[in-house]
Amino acid sequence: MNAEIITIGDEILIGQIVDTNSAYIAKELNKIGISVFQITSVQDDKKHILEALENAQNHAGLVILTGGLGPTKDDITKTTLADYFEDTLVRNKEVVAHIKHIWKTYIKQPLLQVNLDQALVPSKAKVLMNQSGSAPGMWMENNTTVFISLPGVPFEMKALMQNEVLPRLSKQFELPFILHKTVLTYGLGESVIADRISEWENNLPKSVKLAYLPNLGRVRLRLSSKGYDKAVVYKSIHNEIEKLLPQISDVFVGFEEESSIEQIIGNQLIKSNTTLAVAESCTGGRIGAQFTANPGASAYFKGGVIAYDTTIKTQVLGVDKPLIETHSVVSTEVAEAMALGVQKLYNSDYAIATTGNAGPSKGDSDAEVGTVCIAIATPHRVFSKQFTFGKHRERITTKAVHMALTLLQKEIF
Amino acid sequence: MNAEIITIGDEILIGQIVDTNSAYIAKELNKIGISVFQITSVQDDKKHILEALENAQNHAGLVILTGGLGPTKDDITKTTLADYFEDTLVRNKEVVAHIKHIWKTYIKQPLLQVNLDQALVPSKAKVLMNQSGSAPGMWMENNTTVFISLPGVPFEMKALMQNEVLPRLSKQFELPFILHKTVLTYGLGESVIADRISEWENNLPKSVKLAYLPNLGRVRLRLSSKGYDKAVVYKSIHNEIEKLLPQISDVFVGFEEESSIEQIIGNQLIKSNTTLAVAESCTGGRIGAQFTANPGASAYFKGGVIAYDTTIKTQVLGVDKPLIETHSVVSTEVAEAMALGVQKLYNSDYAIATTGNAGPSKGDSDAEVGTVCIAIATPHRVFSKQFTFGKHRERITTKAVHMALTLLQKEIF
Repeated sequence: MNAEIITIGDEILIGQIVDTNSAYIAKELNKIGISVFQITSVQDDKKHILEALENAQNHAGLVILTGGLGPTKDDITKTTLADYFEDTLVRNKEVVAHIKHIWKTYIKQPLLQVNLDQALVPSKAKVLMNQSGSAPGMWMENNTTVFISLPGVPFEMKALMQNEVLPRLSKQFELPFILHKTVLTYGLGESVIADRISEWENNLPKSVKLAYLPNLGRVRLRLSSKGYDKAVVYKSIHNEIEKLLPQISDVFVGFEEESSIEQIIGNQLIKSNTTLAVAESCTGGRIGAQFTANPGASAYFKGGVIAYDTTIKTQVLGVDKPLIETHSVVSTEVAEAMALGVQKLYNSDYAIATTGNAGPSKGDSDAEVGTVCIAIATPHRVFSKQFTFGKHRERITTKAVHMALTLLQKEIF
Repeated sequence: MNAEIITIGDEILIGQIVDTNSAYIAKELNKIGISVFQITSVQDDKKHILEALENAQNHAGLVILTGGLGPTKDDITKTTLADYFEDTLVRNKEVVAHIKHIWKTYIKQPLLQVNLDQALVPSKAKVLMNQSGSAPGMWMENNTTVFISLPGVPFEMKALMQNEVLPRLSKQFELPFILHKTVLTYGLGESVIADRISEWENNLPKSVKLAYLPNLGRVRLRLSSKGYDKAVVYKSIHNEIEKLLPQISDVFVGFEEESSIEQIIGNQLIKSNTTLAVAESCTGGRIGAQFTANPGASAYFKGGVIAYDTTIKTQVLGVDKPLIETHSVVSTEVAEAMALGVQKLYNSDYAIATTGNAGPSKGDSDAEVGTVCIAIATPHRVFSKQFTFGKHRERITTKAVHMALTLLQKEIF
């Protein structure tokens, strides 16, 4: 079964927001065996939406729409769906009651006619109750295709996908099993890796597809397979991974689907009953933010010092002033002193420190833009490395975060 | 002139990556007067790409493609473009020289045949030199439509857009002027705002389009207009903004296009020659990361303490243990003590502190999941508020960051 995702909203087409809904929906559909053939973003324009619905119906057995269900005048998805199905809008009692309930309980602002009108749905639509908001989801069918309309607010869309859409699709259709497994590597370019593993790649069975995904020093290798026998699909991927790993053991980091590198590190720390603290200058809190994005981080993450200003490095982290004067604030020596400083101050087992110049101007130090020093303190030692990460501020800090995590991950056992 | 953006790559359609390229391209095209009619994401599949090209040509005078130009076997954009234009691939000498240069100077890994093959382009294509990578951009035309193919790596795509694509489009076509202006508000729901400003909205001139963009406690109101006379377009938006602002002065924060709220705060701090420090518990470094993402943050951002573990709040920030025992670690009292603690330790004029429970379990405190206390210290006073931000970890911390910045922004003069 092929699906098409249609996201509706001018804000996407003028580049004001990035469409993150499509990636989420695509990933979740893949998990239950539905491939996404195309993602289409269209304007809040009736003629254009009708044309997109028509095109999608020609390609896909399932069309998921998001957006355009709000209470304001720029939202036209419902009336357009009614037109497409030659239907009229009717008031759904259950949704009216739900809207009254949430306004009374949570919103505590006046309930307006436009809010109540969110209970209007095409008469042919099966309503999917939205527990997280006022715009209901809708499920409509014709001879060839299922159309599902969901609100554009990511939180509401996600809840409806999990509670209503995915279970109903799994029940109504017999779906194959799709498996993606992504190998994370760090340290070699994609063409060098491709060259090294070319014999393996050329001998891949037809059922296994390979893709290379390079990104700021990391290359991800994604293997995909699909079939009705779950065990066969698993085995075909597993066999190929077993042949692949020995060829790239020097750059292999882990598997993406299982966990991010922060989660891999978190699990290692929990397993060894140890803790982590960070001292961040050029990364400004991003490493801390990445760890604490994971539930349960408090088991191993003590916190950190964002030592953006040089005085914080000396006064809070206890880095010696003469050390900074001798080696410059962007130096491996200062990075090591920062790592040891936060390790001591926070009484942690491991510590990461970053100091660098992310540009665009030179700032506190003489270091060239793009120079970053990273230090790792472990219970046994401290070490550091200096890198040059280009000229682009956001890329410099992202590369620094990637590298710091990669360096730490190899140290924890 | 209408444009369509086609992004190519299975990684988008299985939801492995979010397509951020389209938003960037759409925004940049808007700036030079080109509206984007549709964004289409398709698989690495020849038949499907050909069909998308055909469809796009029927709608659009400009088609921008990204992705599928890498050196590995899954990349098929170039051969597909050659098919579409009934053309063959030829080796471009300038690109060969460029590839040899970057391999020798930066990559320092073996130069393989697949890397050199990146210099193969359709004979009818005008090459757009990619100074940031090895895959060249391509510009092809037929009677009705300009097709531009760009690499999928965001950094390379962006450089080609700025250096080659946008200047060439502006030169070749006479384009209108498009203006979007987005009013940021915080504190009222979209339907209440819509109700309050309905008379103004109903009387908007036809040339001005309004959209509501609600997001986690914020509602953005976007006004758009388009025309060949820049002064007229500016004036039409400006007039409407002037009428709108007095009606929403209690919830108005600023304008999005000019700057994010972090930048607004940064400019206020620079203007008043004051500094900021942060003490982050539940936000884990995100506030620091948002400030330091902006160039020049070192002028006002001293840094912060990520006080994730309770011991850090007492030992590093100097919060009294009895205060925590009496009021719990998630309390306005502790938030205020954290703000004052980091203000003193970092010798800053302003400070933000956050402490809360982002879930999923209760953690160190008795506070319900979703409870967040935020404190602001200024040169004159300290104050705090307690919030309940729902049950969803990522939304709780995002709302906390939004709220903390909004509270601080109102205090700086």
